[in-house]
Amino acid sequence: MIPTPISRIPVAVLGATGAVGQKFLALLVDHPWFEVAAVAASERSVGMRYGDRVQWREPTSLPAAIAALTIQPAAPPLPAGIVFSALDADIAGSIEQAFAAAGAIVVSNARNHRMDPDIPLIVPEINADHLDLLSRQRANRPWSGAIVANPNCSTAGLALVLGCLHRRWPVDRVFVSTMQAVSGAGYPGVPSLDILDNVIPYIAGEEEKIERETRKILGRLVDGQVHAPELTLSAHANRVPVLDGHTEAVSIGFTEPPGVDAVHEALSDFPDQWGVAELPSSPNPPIVVDPRPDRPQPRLDRTQGQGMSVTVGRIRPCPLLDIRLTLVVHNTVRGAAGLAIQDAELLVARGLIP
Amino acid sequence: MIPTPISRIPVAVLGATGAVGQKFLALLVDHPWFEVAAVAASERSVGMRYGDRVQWREPTSLPAAIAALTIQPAAPPLPAGIVFSALDADIAGSIEQAFAAAGAIVVSNARNHRMDPDIPLIVPEINADHLDLLSRQRANRPWSGAIVANPNCSTAGLALVLGCLHRRWPVDRVFVSTMQAVSGAGYPGVPSLDILDNVIPYIAGEEEKIERETRKILGRLVDGQVHAPELTLSAHANRVPVLDGHTEAVSIGFTEPPGVDAVHEALSDFPDQWGVAELPSSPNPPIVVDPRPDRPQPRLDRTQGQGMSVTVGRIRPCPLLDIRLTLVVHNTVRGAAGLAIQDAELLVARGLIP
Amino acid sequence: MIPTPISRIPVAVLGATGAVGQKFLALLVDHPWFEVAAVAASERSVGMRYGDRVQWREPTSLPAAIAALTIQPAAPPLPAGIVFSALDADIAGSIEQAFAAAGAIVVSNARNHRMDPDIPLIVPEINADHLDLLSRQRANRPWSGAIVANPNCSTAGLALVLGCLHRRWPVDRVFVSTMQAVSGAGYPGVPSLDILDNVIPYIAGEEEKIERETRKILGRLVDGQVHAPELTLSAHANRVPVLDGHTEAVSIGFTEPPGVDAVHEALSDFPDQWGVAELPSSPNPPIVVDPRPDRPQPRLDRTQGQGMSVTVGRIRPCPLLDIRLTLVVHNTVRGAAGLAIQDAELLVARGLIP
Amino acid sequence: MIPTPISRIPVAVLGATGAVGQKFLALLVDHPWFEVAAVAASERSVGMRYGDRVQWREPTSLPAAIAALTIQPAAPPLPAGIVFSALDADIAGSIEQAFAAAGAIVVSNARNHRMDPDIPLIVPEINADHLDLLSRQRANRPWSGAIVANPNCSTAGLALVLGCLHRRWPVDRVFVSTMQAVSGAGYPGVPSLDILDNVIPYIAGEEEKIERETRKILGRLVDGQVHAPELTLSAHANRVPVLDGHTEAVSIGFTEPPGVDAVHEALSDFPDQWGVAELPSSPNPPIVVDPRPDRPQPRLDRTQGQGMSVTVGRIRPCPLLDIRLTLVVHNTVRGAAGLAIQDAELLVARGLIP
Repeated sequence: MIPTPISRIPVAVLGATGAVGQKFLALLVDHPWFEVAAVAASERSVGMRYGDRVQWREPTSLPAAIAALTIQPAAPPLPAGIVFSALDADIAGSIEQAFAAAGAIVVSNARNHRMDPDIPLIVPEINADHLDLLSRQRANRPWSGAIVANPNCSTAGLALVLGCLHRRWPVDRVFVSTMQAVSGAGYPGVPSLDILDNVIPYIAGEEEKIERETRKILGRLVDGQVHAPELTLSAHANRVPVLDGHTEAVSIGFTEPPGVDAVHEALSDFPDQWGVAELPSSPNPPIVVDPRPDRPQPRLDRTQGQGMSVTVGRIRPCPLLDIRLTLVVHNTVRGAAGLAIQDAELLVARGLIP
Repeated sequence: MIPTPISRIPVAVLGATGAVGQKFLALLVDHPWFEVAAVAASERSVGMRYGDRVQWREPTSLPAAIAALTIQPAAPPLPAGIVFSALDADIAGSIEQAFAAAGAIVVSNARNHRMDPDIPLIVPEINADHLDLLSRQRANRPWSGAIVANPNCSTAGLALVLGCLHRRWPVDRVFVSTMQAVSGAGYPGVPSLDILDNVIPYIAGEEEKIERETRKILGRLVDGQVHAPELTLSAHANRVPVLDGHTEAVSIGFTEPPGVDAVHEALSDFPDQWGVAELPSSPNPPIVVDPRPDRPQPRLDRTQGQGMSVTVGRIRPCPLLDIRLTLVVHNTVRGAAGLAIQDAELLVARGLIP
Repeated sequence: MIPTPISRIPVAVLGATGAVGQKFLALLVDHPWFEVAAVAASERSVGMRYGDRVQWREPTSLPAAIAALTIQPAAPPLPAGIVFSALDADIAGSIEQAFAAAGAIVVSNARNHRMDPDIPLIVPEINADHLDLLSRQRANRPWSGAIVANPNCSTAGLALVLGCLHRRWPVDRVFVSTMQAVSGAGYPGVPSLDILDNVIPYIAGEEEKIERETRKILGRLVDGQVHAPELTLSAHANRVPVLDGHTEAVSIGFTEPPGVDAVHEALSDFPDQWGVAELPSSPNPPIVVDPRPDRPQPRLDRTQGQGMSVTVGRIRPCPLLDIRLTLVVHNTVRGAAGLAIQDAELLVARGLIP
Repeated sequence: MIPTPISRIPVAVLGATGAVGQKFLALLVDHPWFEVAAVAASERSVGMRYGDRVQWREPTSLPAAIAALTIQPAAPPLPAGIVFSALDADIAGSIEQAFAAAGAIVVSNARNHRMDPDIPLIVPEINADHLDLLSRQRANRPWSGAIVANPNCSTAGLALVLGCLHRRWPVDRVFVSTMQAVSGAGYPGVPSLDILDNVIPYIAGEEEKIERETRKILGRLVDGQVHAPELTLSAHANRVPVLDGHTEAVSIGFTEPPGVDAVHEALSDFPDQWGVAELPSSPNPPIVVDPRPDRPQPRLDRTQGQGMSVTVGRIRPCPLLDIRLTLVVHNTVRGAAGLAIQDAELLVARGLIP
């Protein structure tokens, strides 16, 4: 049983005017544990009222309390114990370090620190134990705070599914071809002239991230170090004319292959190994298995579990590896802001927030 | 040097009012060798003027000479030596056999006979020699005519690329994840409510067709029999909101893997093994290799070579197999009507039309 | 104060497997006053379990209680006091009459009876008083039940806005150019090949319906007869690649023109003339006025008020008439099933359900 | 009979790397009268090879001769008698004036000078005579060159249709609601997150341009001055998810209204009042009238006359004004680069190029 914090914990959002920043705020409204105490953005926005500056694009309306906040600089101190970073990668690195040095717990959606050996890269249902890296991090680094990262959007969905299977039947080979939504590129992001009636078979850096980050998440923590599994991934990343929800066609090879039914059952009945099912943002179930022949589909399935469940379908034998399936993950919820919030909840539940 | 027929050969199109039928007619206008002499369709259209009956959907305008034709029943005899079949699979089988029995050369886009051991399944650049199956076919079957098939639309593009490589470096393992255009489902086909802002990760029967037909096309003809190669394919078929042009993400394993540069060169410089480059519908080159990092794209590349070239890009190493690449094929031209016409041209050039 | 019914009223949905029928069911789940007691569909579905027969397409999941219902024939009797008709117009007329003859209260989304002089065509906020036509209807017709109609989807939004203004400043000339979502055509409806990268400037019968039905709704009921206003409308109906939500560009002429600010205020502060604001499906406010220069937009505004609010923006002077504005209406909620349910609630509140 | 220039006239394109600039170059390849002698762009591109700098987005391939050009500064002198301006409005004004001062003939697609009383705003079929403003322009202005403007993209289509009718039956009231393609906003232009599954009912400045420019084009030139007609327009401008081709729903009032058939005939049989039909870019006919009930449609009709014809359909009575119709105009050809080239051809034919 996870204890509920007595009073709501003040949190800040860095990069609050961007697409991911807005998604953070939309998800934090009425959060049972967290309260948005500060929003930060770039120089030219500092000092303005958030509601006057932001071009709010979420379907839910901007809450008055957040609209009334004055935009702060993205630098410590901010009146918040947890700092969510929705910063662009070109500036995120040093800013996040500065906050950690100032004692803040940073949960970052940026790619900068994901592969650092002492930074936990967390999907709670899979590797909540990797939070133990924090003691090594604090020993290594000149800070009393911490940085925790969440993986890239395609990886978030893939690692949840693979991680669930890998526990029981080690996975050693994976082929994945993604069909990614335009919201993954932020705003303004993908020009309509590029994507209407089209597919773009390239997303800079994406394939490498999927191949690298998945291995870290599935790794075993031994003596304060993550040991990646014997696992080879090959990713093809594609952009398609879809607003939200990444679709991934996946073939999986195992060292000792289970049958289709066993895979179906393992995914449907995902055991809560790390006691994270009661976190406020944890979906129940984490993975929805849909037996219909033409599912999952991003428009119809992206909002399963308020966007935090991954939907899997078309589980069938693979002529080349062992099992084929398709998954859909909501790229800005489970794949970004929602996952970072779930990570922060995990930190709270583990008593890692000062 | 391929001799040009002295006078244009009369051809007929079965299923002429449907989407593929219309594409046949659009491509046959001003064809140097062929002349549309008859159009055939279902019972309820017979006897009507084609121009009055058809809901013409091609971007080019319907030629007056074709509009003026009276729709015939889809049964022999028709005043044509070559009969193109754009019939639905549920009726194509017996009708095509009836035409062959009546002495016609049927070139079929339907799936019914593709896997029959004595029916050539032809992509001219790859396996023009498989036409030798016709002598066996005529020995086996109660007909003086013939049936020649073209493969399904995704296979047409894949087999061209794999076939080119397979000649030099035997291919033994292939992953392919397709992102297929809605025109592949005919008209009315995919409802807009199903595909706007969406991906459908399922096309009935498509994966099996890709896996099966590719192996037949790449097979070796020995003693009047096609021997499929030692090749395992795994296909994931998806529908995306694109009008025309299938995109395919492909990973390829070889028994003796070439490097990226060798693959690039082999595809760019496709040798004309069977002397088919001068057929009127043969594109030059058959495969366009585009080195730009974000190509090929269906909207920008589908009309290469008037829709008969396949465009390949993103040739790079595959961590799991050997080589990864992306291809775009115009599904209704190279993948259907255009290929059938090219097949018919090959028959003429080989003197196989009575 | 509207009294809440003591126990939930059993209702039936005719045409329950179609797109509008499914929307009815999705909206009736957990309805405080109504309980789905029966579903009816065409011959070939009768006797089957609803959950086995329907291709459920709503984003919310199909409730088990409804899935378990056995499909009934679309003929009386059904165990329901209120019968919602989502039938196609080619069969709706006589079936709805049969139900009325059998004593049922039919609330119909079909066009068949909308313009009958003794059939109320209701948008509750505008013309709840037109329900008085029911006494005339029962006098005229061989039935103890009743038929009440809701207008076509584009009209539903337009009539709400015009009706609000017309009360204070009689409207005498209206231009409207619609950009309608594909869901307005039902399922399968508009083929994707017709609408991707395209606009279709024609929807059969739609312009006439908008011009005719709007005048009836804005009419005054005198001596049991609706007198249409001195109002001329000109409609241009267009289909665009949008899933849900009709957008309408409207120019309005008045006999005594108000200013832009007065229009803004009148729409924002819509007086509840008929005491309908407390009906369970009545949105609050009925009309949302958005002052941002580029709103309303169908994707962002269609779900205002759970799809029952109409959003208005761009209120500005018209060089030709007096006022220009743009509105967005959710075509399957406010424009179809949601409005019919609101109409039924009105009947209950008025004590018109036996 | 228009005399063909003996040798090709060298032309320059300003803003050559942008979307409209690329369209100019694509249309000028193989132009019988013009030869691209120089391309100019902003500071940061100057000195680079055009083929290395441009992100070529036209479907036709970039010609080698143009790719090899070195990018010049957008300042005189350039080795060209005619200078096409595809510059952004924020810089176009002074640059175009500098070229005119240096003796060049500038044909501009920018909005800056369109409404200047001494700048001809030309749609050749309608107001070729307005070129007589050039003598006044040269008298007024400190230059021996000239500036000629083409109207905004929506106006180009509307003015062609209205101008044709206005000649015979003066038009006094027009309502127009546009559904505009994303290419009208240039590149990167409209973000895909804004337009997928959506309509944006606002394009900054567009309605004013349509209302203003149409009146100037339809004006009568008397004593070196354009007198706008007694014509009131009301425009609603909307952006829709279409790549190319603006669709416009138009209602027209006349001082002496013709019937539907007369309008049909007048548009179909557009008399060549100004002897411009033989200009290389003049389409034949300028207006295509399509009698099918659901035409014109942008995807199917935008390429009529190589993009220079306007397609009109749905001619029918208007309950409020006199006639309703729908038109489709290719916004980047007839509505921008193609029209500017046709304007330049007109200047050549009139002997106005030094």
